Amino acid sequence: MNKHLISIIWEDEKLILLDQTVLPNEVKYEAYTTAESVWDAIRVMKVRGAPAIGVSAAYGLYLGVKNHGGTDRAGFLEAVKKTSAYLATSRPTAVNLFWALERMERVAEQNSGLTVVEVKDLLKREAEAIHAEDEQINRAIGENLLTLLKDGMGLLTHCNAGALATAKYGTATAPMYLAKERGWNFKVYSDETRPRLQGSTLTALELHSAGIDVTVITDNMAAVVMSQGKIDAVIVGCDRVAANGDTANKIGTLGVSILAKHYGIPFYVAAPTPTIDRNTPDGAGIPIEERDSSEVTSLYGVQTAPPGVKAYNPAFDVTPHENITAIVTEKGIVHAPFEQNLAELLKGQTI
Amino acid sequence: MNKHLISIIWEDEKLILLDQTVLPNEVKYEAYTTAESVWDAIRVMKVRGAPAIGVSAAYGLYLGVKNHGGTDRAGFLEAVKKTSAYLATSRPTAVNLFWALERMERVAEQNSGLTVVEVKDLLKREAEAIHAEDEQINRAIGENLLTLLKDGMGLLTHCNAGALATAKYGTATAPMYLAKERGWNFKVYSDETRPRLQGSTLTALELHSAGIDVTVITDNMAAVVMSQGKIDAVIVGCDRVAANGDTANKIGTLGVSILAKHYGIPFYVAAPTPTIDRNTPDGAGIPIEERDSSEVTSLYGVQTAPPGVKAYNPAFDVTPHENITAIVTEKGIVHAPFEQNLAELLKGQTI
Repeated sequence: MNKHLISIIWEDEKLILLDQTVLPNEVKYEAYTTAESVWDAIRVMKVRGAPAIGVSAAYGLYLGVKNHGGTDRAGFLEAVKKTSAYLATSRPTAVNLFWALERMERVAEQNSGLTVVEVKDLLKREAEAIHAEDEQINRAIGENLLTLLKDGMGLLTHCNAGALATAKYGTATAPMYLAKERGWNFKVYSDETRPRLQGSTLTALELHSAGIDVTVITDNMAAVVMSQGKIDAVIVGCDRVAANGDTANKIGTLGVSILAKHYGIPFYVAAPTPTIDRNTPDGAGIPIEERDSSEVTSLYGVQTAPPGVKAYNPAFDVTPHENITAIVTEKGIVHAPFEQNLAELLKGQTI
Repeated sequence: MNKHLISIIWEDEKLILLDQTVLPNEVKYEAYTTAESVWDAIRVMKVRGAPAIGVSAAYGLYLGVKNHGGTDRAGFLEAVKKTSAYLATSRPTAVNLFWALERMERVAEQNSGLTVVEVKDLLKREAEAIHAEDEQINRAIGENLLTLLKDGMGLLTHCNAGALATAKYGTATAPMYLAKERGWNFKVYSDETRPRLQGSTLTALELHSAGIDVTVITDNMAAVVMSQGKIDAVIVGCDRVAANGDTANKIGTLGVSILAKHYGIPFYVAAPTPTIDRNTPDGAGIPIEERDSSEVTSLYGVQTAPPGVKAYNPAFDVTPHENITAIVTEKGIVHAPFEQNLAELLKGQTI
């Protein structure tokens, strides 16, 4: 079928999101026109993936203030900050969320000489710019990752750092789409990624839709496919990279990184620079969202553990930088020592 | 509630099995009176776990020949061998299955001087003996494992090598039940064990029923709980141990062994000696059952991967002996070098 799925559409002052909670069984788009409904879409993971959350939150902020009455500039700036603070509470781990909201706030702050109507327009343009830049960033990450890969390789990915998690191309999946465009054939293994199964419901869906060779495995099969020599490289996305290269990503990434190290397989993190948080020195400083235990003890409404049994459900884990072969950004490929090389890469960039 | 669940009951010439495919939502027992129905119960995993499969197959063989007509001893022996060969095709990996069937065949062969009626009775007694011995073996494994553990420890187990997989106590779970009897408090983490979720539907069920502190995690959380210092030892069961100590067990065990090695956590295999296959030199010689890919791409009738997407579904993997701290049997604890020490342990035992 070779159909690329798009997660975020901005049209006629409406944010239109693909509802990712009903995939792969249903392809359903919903329109959002308020900050509250966008907050809810992020919270319940109708939109997910750090970059897509950032883009959605930016539009959400604009939607939250576009109908702000009056021409008082201080009052309007207040409303922008309040809406931004509110949207920032939707998910705790994704740094892109805060980054996008701060970028929007800065537009309002730095243009306080303009009228409220003019600032509203600038906010819309900024959200559109964040959206467009994400696609460009992903394409550049894909090009950089391709320099580390060869036609015919077996790749393993975890969760969904795919087109569905971003504006287009995805981050970890970007080289897969670009390789497809140039006629290469990767053989991709996608960890299903319990508890929410983003690897099977999302990554397998989008790669298969695009005509890319993908095989779903349960998370606990990663070791056996590596032991069989089927994997030449692991590529994952990230929710936040600390200044020293420690990387928070979907639960299970840490385990995959240890297995890759054991088998001598390169482990690449696809990281748009907004995901790099220079204010957090190392992984210990990244807050890890713990989600409801029912995600682990039931599935599709069926109980998988007996009532009353405890479950643990951290949504993310932190991969220490020692397990990472390279962090691949839109600005270039970063190797160890990560602290020094990440700082070098981001030199002169505003935080 | 502190109620111990029993997987296999032999009563009034009927094999009564707890249907493990509907747990934890339903506790349903079914009676079996033919070899064909026992073959089917093993095949569809209503009964599972290497020791429980061995016990069930032994009863299945007796049930398959008990109504054999006539008094011709050669014809009866022929029927025993035919039924045994048939039952051996129900699952390919569990060596206990073959071991139990061979033991039953031997009874028929070595008593060819007796009448058919007498041999039938001996076959019944042999199946009952295999059943009773399994309970004794597990208790001994539990006692041996307890010498390696301390009150208050955090333990991680994978899949179900529990009471439900055996006649009683389980293998990997035996020290947990015995510790409970003596007032110790382990904190057990149970990998849910995709694709069939035996860790959440079975292990968590039986431990929780017995009042043991158990927490369910998804398979991909094993690394993070280890990194947090919550795990002092990993204990798993096994489907077959090769002569050099390489161990086939439920898919995902290999990954857990690599993680345990990475974090310096002891990795123990609970292995009744019938599970040790001296005819297989190493793990490469153990056939690995590959099951239908629909187990990976759908769950409870809901599609988790889009139609047409490939999935890989090996039911087992092989943990190389280098990753194993000790193989704990009913006859004692075996450390490296495993080839030599396993041979020493089994010296003089008929194969």
